[in-house]
Amino acid sequence: MGNFVACCRGFWCRTKNPDVRISLPGVCFIWQIAMIILFGLFVRYNEESDAHWAEHKHTKNITSDIENDFYYRYPSFQDVHVMIFVGFGFLMTFLKRYSFGGVGFNFLIAAFGLQWALLMQGWFHSLDPVDGTIKIGVENIINADFCVAGCLIAYGALLGKVSPVQLMVLTLFGITLFAVEEYIILELLHVRDAGGSMVIHTFGAYYGLTISWILYRPKLELSKRLGGSAYHSDVFAMIGTLFLWMFWPSFNSAISDHGDGQHRAAINTYLALASSVLTTFAISSLSAKRGKLDMVHIQNATLAGGVAMGTAAEFMISPYGSLIVGFCCGIISTFGYLVMTPFMEKYLKIQDTCGIHNLHAMPGLLGGVVGAITAATASETVYGHEGLVNTFDFEGKYANRTSATQGGYQAAGICVALVFGIVGGIIVGCILRLPFWGDPADENCFDDEVYWEVPEDEESMPPILEYNSHMVSKNTDMMSESNFTVDQS
Amino acid sequence: MGNFVACCRGFWCRTKNPDVRISLPGVCFIWQIAMIILFGLFVRYNEESDAHWAEHKHTKNITSDIENDFYYRYPSFQDVHVMIFVGFGFLMTFLKRYSFGGVGFNFLIAAFGLQWALLMQGWFHSLDPVDGTIKIGVENIINADFCVAGCLIAYGALLGKVSPVQLMVLTLFGITLFAVEEYIILELLHVRDAGGSMVIHTFGAYYGLTISWILYRPKLELSKRLGGSAYHSDVFAMIGTLFLWMFWPSFNSAISDHGDGQHRAAINTYLALASSVLTTFAISSLSAKRGKLDMVHIQNATLAGGVAMGTAAEFMISPYGSLIVGFCCGIISTFGYLVMTPFMEKYLKIQDTCGIHNLHAMPGLLGGVVGAITAATASETVYGHEGLVNTFDFEGKYANRTSATQGGYQAAGICVALVFGIVGGIIVGCILRLPFWGDPADENCFDDEVYWEVPEDEESMPPILEYNSHMVSKNTDMMSESNFTVDQS
Amino acid sequence: MGNFVACCRGFWCRTKNPDVRISLPGVCFIWQIAMIILFGLFVRYNEESDAHWAEHKHTKNITSDIENDFYYRYPSFQDVHVMIFVGFGFLMTFLKRYSFGGVGFNFLIAAFGLQWALLMQGWFHSLDPVDGTIKIGVENIINADFCVAGCLIAYGALLGKVSPVQLMVLTLFGITLFAVEEYIILELLHVRDAGGSMVIHTFGAYYGLTISWILYRPKLELSKRLGGSAYHSDVFAMIGTLFLWMFWPSFNSAISDHGDGQHRAAINTYLALASSVLTTFAISSLSAKRGKLDMVHIQNATLAGGVAMGTAAEFMISPYGSLIVGFCCGIISTFGYLVMTPFMEKYLKIQDTCGIHNLHAMPGLLGGVVGAITAATASETVYGHEGLVNTFDFEGKYANRTSATQGGYQAAGICVALVFGIVGGIIVGCILRLPFWGDPADENCFDDEVYWEVPEDEESMPPILEYNSHMVSKNTDMMSESNFTVDQS
Repeated sequence: MGNFVACCRGFWCRTKNPDVRISLPGVCFIWQIAMIILFGLFVRYNEESDAHWAEHKHTKNITSDIENDFYYRYPSFQDVHVMIFVGFGFLMTFLKRYSFGGVGFNFLIAAFGLQWALLMQGWFHSLDPVDGTIKIGVENIINADFCVAGCLIAYGALLGKVSPVQLMVLTLFGITLFAVEEYIILELLHVRDAGGSMVIHTFGAYYGLTISWILYRPKLELSKRLGGSAYHSDVFAMIGTLFLWMFWPSFNSAISDHGDGQHRAAINTYLALASSVLTTFAISSLSAKRGKLDMVHIQNATLAGGVAMGTAAEFMISPYGSLIVGFCCGIISTFGYLVMTPFMEKYLKIQDTCGIHNLHAMPGLLGGVVGAITAATASETVYGHEGLVNTFDFEGKYANRTSATQGGYQAAGICVALVFGIVGGIIVGCILRLPFWGDPADENCFDDEVYWEVPEDEESMPPILEYNSHMVSKNTDMMSESNFTVDQS
Repeated sequence: MGNFVACCRGFWCRTKNPDVRISLPGVCFIWQIAMIILFGLFVRYNEESDAHWAEHKHTKNITSDIENDFYYRYPSFQDVHVMIFVGFGFLMTFLKRYSFGGVGFNFLIAAFGLQWALLMQGWFHSLDPVDGTIKIGVENIINADFCVAGCLIAYGALLGKVSPVQLMVLTLFGITLFAVEEYIILELLHVRDAGGSMVIHTFGAYYGLTISWILYRPKLELSKRLGGSAYHSDVFAMIGTLFLWMFWPSFNSAISDHGDGQHRAAINTYLALASSVLTTFAISSLSAKRGKLDMVHIQNATLAGGVAMGTAAEFMISPYGSLIVGFCCGIISTFGYLVMTPFMEKYLKIQDTCGIHNLHAMPGLLGGVVGAITAATASETVYGHEGLVNTFDFEGKYANRTSATQGGYQAAGICVALVFGIVGGIIVGCILRLPFWGDPADENCFDDEVYWEVPEDEESMPPILEYNSHMVSKNTDMMSESNFTVDQS
Repeated sequence: MGNFVACCRGFWCRTKNPDVRISLPGVCFIWQIAMIILFGLFVRYNEESDAHWAEHKHTKNITSDIENDFYYRYPSFQDVHVMIFVGFGFLMTFLKRYSFGGVGFNFLIAAFGLQWALLMQGWFHSLDPVDGTIKIGVENIINADFCVAGCLIAYGALLGKVSPVQLMVLTLFGITLFAVEEYIILELLHVRDAGGSMVIHTFGAYYGLTISWILYRPKLELSKRLGGSAYHSDVFAMIGTLFLWMFWPSFNSAISDHGDGQHRAAINTYLALASSVLTTFAISSLSAKRGKLDMVHIQNATLAGGVAMGTAAEFMISPYGSLIVGFCCGIISTFGYLVMTPFMEKYLKIQDTCGIHNLHAMPGLLGGVVGAITAATASETVYGHEGLVNTFDFEGKYANRTSATQGGYQAAGICVALVFGIVGGIIVGCILRLPFWGDPADENCFDDEVYWEVPEDEESMPPILEYNSHMVSKNTDMMSESNFTVDQS
């Protein structure tokens, strides 16, 4: 028994080997080939992207090409696309020496994730009962981007501490879980969540946090020197922040109802975001000596308003309601960075690199609650009869559902997202603890050198001051290491 | 009397204390709460963003959701939104150590300004006479972004020399003045200014320049070491420049008339901008030894064509007319940077950090003049009868206005913008001279350290070469100061 | 004769003088004035951007302004615009000390090129037979941006080795050649190439490569110290990469047919791009010690899928077909960087700074072939009768063309693009070898100092550690040179 334990420990705790030369290409090739085969078997164009559109128009008496869903949703799709790749990607460049990993691995897992998401979501939502294929159009690719967002949020908690292979695994399972969770929430419970406060943010955040908890690194302080930002990396991260902030109205309105639904979702999100900027600046300034602002807060907590409007944006929450939501979120999220993140790291053993608990988990939960309350209090006075039916899809077998019932189901949706995030995170976290995924050692976290060919920065290389030629060669070698002192006595 | 003067001097000239720990959160909270209350009292969705849209469609015989104004204007709105936050924000990151302040305070005041703008513009333009509320839709949020642009332009003159609290005050008054000025120009004078050459650029620039004149700092050269750019900060600023440049066609066409109006405005702006790039490069090269280009010119003067097309973009100025406008603006604006900015600083005591006089004031005035001439010479031969009426809104009580009269009113609009900018600037400038706003001392201008927690850039820390261990600790201390020499004899 | 040769050598090989103070402004002014005159003579608004649109609507029974082509294409136009200026511009900032030149000269030649393209393409495609003028609308400005892309691709091969004046000449001829080539391919051969695999990428790449071959610099290794990237410049380049990658679906769909054409083109491109990301990461990791990824590959080869879908994107290539194309392109392109670029430099004397052979030439050719095959195998079963006619424009005098014939013409199009690229490149290359264009000396390539006022980077200046005051001044001088050692014995 003792032998077995020792053996296990040897297996689990052997020296980390972050060489991914076989595993990363292997995973990329296998999964991409699998995608090609599955797409070949299952995925086709839908009636609006198929060349038969001309005939479809005649059949459905559509008079103009502009009625193609492409023109309703493509501009929003592109905004969402920018959020996924530039928004999330650059938001994660804030670490001084992990910018390549931040933006690069974000790119990799998003590109894989969206393919798998098209399949998973397709099987659940767009399966053609006649021929068993998935019919895709612009709404599917928006949903695929949404689905990917969940995994990118999870990546935020793990930034700098995992290998790209682990991220691919995390994404494979994350998308799968997401699709099931989304099916339960949106289809079975018939919950409205166009911007994904629950489906995307709550799920993604708890998924990532749970994995981070399982992968806890007690000696992470060995990488402390690289765990912060540099001046320029903070400016790079602001690119991410601003593109997320600006395009969040498109995110929350991208798959809302045509017409007033998209219109209202965009306005509500716009207002909530503006409001959370002010409270973020306020709390950030209030909490520091001499009122100095902290870039971490500005880069993240300003976005909390968008997260929290994910569910309610398309409802008649009214402009001042949106402002209130943003007001609260900016405060909660900034307090999270000040209090919760250190607390969670110290006492709950959850190391959350980007603070996704503050940006996605808490505002996501709040968004779910706001959505439930707004739905429960919806009335025909405010929405009009037709408006109420359209907004909540009280049609078909849901024709008799009341607003109050809908509110209850909305609340149930929050729980489903939470359970999927936590349970899924535990399972995937355990898989990711297996010792062959090539994750970095505790002293090499947050370091691009591990997985990237990093250019030598001659530019930031200092002129070397020597007093004998012998020293030159000696020091050149030493310079390649990070902290050194030349003791020449 | 002497005592009084001394007392005043003591009050006005006491040592600067840039601690904003109380004032900034205070201002943010008070103003955000005021916004929530006012929005609660006044702001509602308009018929296109309200859930009653379905019923509205029946009433107005609108056959398709695509007729919702959202689909006409939302893509342009998002482009404008990018200009406000990324465009203006990153354009102001060019200073080597004020990038946080450039992009961060731009973010803060834009987020506040747009809320206040929705109210102020709403009261003047979108007030529902029935219930006294403001009905908002996508056009309102575009206009709010426009309104904010005026204040961000003003910020350009003051960049690095004011506190965030001063900026909040500047924005509060700036938006207020803007809304009144805009009401007078667009409604009372019935002037056309879709891209805001007068309303936005002329007003904003003179507002900022006048404030900068009042806040003149005679000892600003104490901050000279930080008053320039660094290599990377110049590249960051190019992000701002390019997003402004690319999306300016959307800016000038965002609230033009549906159909040909938006179409023509985009094309005209596109051409004028292209033209001003060439003359900017030409003058920049011509003015320097060995023809070396200056990034300051490229970052700014290339945009002058867009500013100057703000009024005339939707008119039939014809493609070559647009090219001529851009041609002249590139020259004028670059000369401004070469000649006017140093002249103004030396003789007029106006310190204009970003050179807004060259980018916004002069091209804005020129744009107003071009608009007046183009309007005055408009004829039914060129526009067609219906086209002329649509373009200049010669309807209702303006049905009998002729092109020539319109030209006169356009010219009057320029004066109104100028007067509001200068008089408003004097008033607000005096308010901002009050000594409790927390502005930085002359020797700490252009320095993020004053209002931000700036990360220590270990990265740019050089490997330390020592010849005895005693020196190590000694130098590590000294290294935290900027310019030092170790004299070890 | 010997004298003549010596004289010639003296003429061609005289010391480089990169002073462009006369030539650059001269070229800019002359060409911009020429543009104004030619626009004055030839360019007018088309019926959708003219103020007569209202009357045109009545004539053509158009019921709504939303039918204006502006609303079909403007969002895509803006995405393409971002690709041209931010995408190509920032992709070329990867060199550690040529970021100004990368993004700045890209800006200059794109701004000139689009004007000349409007004229050249207008004469070939949009000439009004009645009055001999060119009528422009949104589709023309998209096409002008496309046309510019060809020259920017060519710039990629020459980055850092040519003067801005040479680039202006390259662009003038490049646009001219492009317009003729495009006319032959699209009009005479009636080939479909909406995203320009042949017309833009193949042509542009071979044009640039041939010029680079003619301008071969045998002593380029003298600039080796500046020929690589720095950490931050690589992150800047990722901005370019991501905006190109995200907006490529808009590029390939911008001028496709309304309705299903645009819809399908966007989806196909989206999928191909996602697929090439995975194979790029795979090959990049596989090729390096310890599986370390190379930023050059990630920045470039990930885009190959978009290039290769330029022709076939609007066809019914089916989703899995798109994935396969992306799959192959990622592999080919990354191998190109690993094998072809060094091979071409060493044996073919082609110095290709950005590796456009791997990103544009090979994927462009492949895209042409894929398009030809897809067209040749198109059938009414897959497209429907109406769909087939619409997609391939089998109307008018092409009503009887079969799919198989179309495939043949598509293949012929590839050859035309190749011939124009190579022959055009030889001619323009010889012109650019003339000795008065102000190109930099071999030891000053890739250096912004040559054409730009570069700020002194105090920031990256290290604190100087001295042990006697004499050394201070000595070293300060030396610090201005790049590689130095102080031998103090």
